[in-house]
Amino acid sequence: MRILSGLQPSGRLHIGNYFGMMEAALKLQHEGDAYYFIADYHSLNTVQDGKLLRDHVRNLAIDFLACGLDPAKSVFFRQSDLPEHAELSWILSTVTPMGLLERCHSYKDKVAHGIKPSHGLFAYPVLMAADILIYDSDVVPVGRDQKQHVEVTRDIAIKMNETFGEGLFKLPMPRINEQTAVVPGLDGQKMSKSYDNTIQLFEELPALKKKIMGIKTDSTPVESPKSIEGSSILALYKLVASQADYDTMVADHEKGGVGYGDFKKRLLQAMTEHFAPFRERRAEIIADPKYVDRVLAEGAEKARAVARKTLARVRDAVGLG
Amino acid sequence: MRILSGLQPSGRLHIGNYFGMMEAALKLQHEGDAYYFIADYHSLNTVQDGKLLRDHVRNLAIDFLACGLDPAKSVFFRQSDLPEHAELSWILSTVTPMGLLERCHSYKDKVAHGIKPSHGLFAYPVLMAADILIYDSDVVPVGRDQKQHVEVTRDIAIKMNETFGEGLFKLPMPRINEQTAVVPGLDGQKMSKSYDNTIQLFEELPALKKKIMGIKTDSTPVESPKSIEGSSILALYKLVASQADYDTMVADHEKGGVGYGDFKKRLLQAMTEHFAPFRERRAEIIADPKYVDRVLAEGAEKARAVARKTLARVRDAVGLG
Repeated sequence: MRILSGLQPSGRLHIGNYFGMMEAALKLQHEGDAYYFIADYHSLNTVQDGKLLRDHVRNLAIDFLACGLDPAKSVFFRQSDLPEHAELSWILSTVTPMGLLERCHSYKDKVAHGIKPSHGLFAYPVLMAADILIYDSDVVPVGRDQKQHVEVTRDIAIKMNETFGEGLFKLPMPRINEQTAVVPGLDGQKMSKSYDNTIQLFEELPALKKKIMGIKTDSTPVESPKSIEGSSILALYKLVASQADYDTMVADHEKGGVGYGDFKKRLLQAMTEHFAPFRERRAEIIADPKYVDRVLAEGAEKARAVARKTLARVRDAVGLG
Repeated sequence: MRILSGLQPSGRLHIGNYFGMMEAALKLQHEGDAYYFIADYHSLNTVQDGKLLRDHVRNLAIDFLACGLDPAKSVFFRQSDLPEHAELSWILSTVTPMGLLERCHSYKDKVAHGIKPSHGLFAYPVLMAADILIYDSDVVPVGRDQKQHVEVTRDIAIKMNETFGEGLFKLPMPRINEQTAVVPGLDGQKMSKSYDNTIQLFEELPALKKKIMGIKTDSTPVESPKSIEGSSILALYKLVASQADYDTMVADHEKGGVGYGDFKKRLLQAMTEHFAPFRERRAEIIADPKYVDRVLAEGAEKARAVARKTLARVRDAVGLG
């Protein structure tokens, strides 16, 4: 089973990204043949600053490796090392009905939220189809909001197969991670860069402390029971603490006598401990500046072997070269 | 001065193509540094049959070489040997406003004429911009209908320069060939494949004879003067006969006494003679089956050296790789 997933390098990862997507992707490495790529061609739509994009790509690579991406198990590469994606995207474009793209919610939503309607944003699902189809992917783990794009990929693959011969492309399946936790941000809303309420995955300790100690709470006195419903502290604690410690914190909320400051300290400690091994691994990776380049170069080479084979098959079928 | 032109491999060339575009392009070889390519990525929008597309590409290459394209002077190559065009096209997409493409007449006209609105057709001007910009082209000879696409190219180049640094792209100029003859077809309308009224550039002689002898004429008796206005025979003869022979035919129309059958025979002979050297050259080219492959491979190599340099500059500026 081949699994494909793209990661957008649009800034530093936060723990919402980690629990919302990365953790599941890292587990999937052990279930099949995982191809994970840093989607820098896609990011050009939003990050239009060369230096910034390069920094984002590098940080994303470091962070993923630090969290347990195993380059011996997964093929991990940078999309722009594989121009084959862009070429296949053009070929797919020529059979893609405009209506299929015009119906994509994601484009309409982004434009409605004030993002400039660029052609790259509109054409995004076609490049995504190329990303998926070029590796004969079986499974694409996605959030609910990306499910439609995998359906578009299937429609394009079906169109190509009808036009140029059955079996040209394998039809991928979306896998929706239903039990993904919605990670609350510092203000109780969903954690998201656009709400400016995030805790970075590798937040420096003083900043982490400041953020956690600054979580807004209500004015329930220390001695009174505290509400479990809607507590960001508890929701975050659940992600990083053991079940026993979490149960204790719930009990302490219910019976009263423990202040929010105390809960925050427990959260700070649990979070620090939970990510400590990643933090150590990250320091090792950073200490060897060539390591990331080497991993991405080797990943690109493995990806290229598959991508070139698919592209040769497609070029032959459509009459190029 | 670098000149760029793309040729769509959509079927056998007819003499309308020759006098409408090829002749001017062949002359331009001597004015500057010409880059001519067979636009097979573009043709995927209309020719969705692998074998047919490959045949069209090969025939177009043979015909252009037979008519005098000099591979020692011009860089002559097949677009799909340069996937760099597709990659640059994606990069340009991300700064291309949707409105710019939505305003393109050519897309709207094609759809109005019943062509399926595919994304490839819509995105055509972006790939065309990549075709042009990747060679730092100065001049793009185009028909009136393509002028808007060169303007789109300039708009995209300006946007890229504003976003990623002045001087990233050179701004190309369209050159409209104003004095291009409108070549009449066998039925008097403009010669066009879609009107099924063409004379192929390398029509076999019996077919050529049949087509010319079958040109519809009016019923003016042999002895009477004949109309010069609107005569396909005269208009075609003007393209292939000497000035003196043309003047004689005009005089013979005016004074009467010569029948249409006679005029047609003169046209047939002049046309045969005019294209005889091309026909001979074509036979030589076909006799050496490796020649075309060699020319296109060498052309691709020369084009690649330029395209890769531009692409490296662009990738560096936008933060890829």
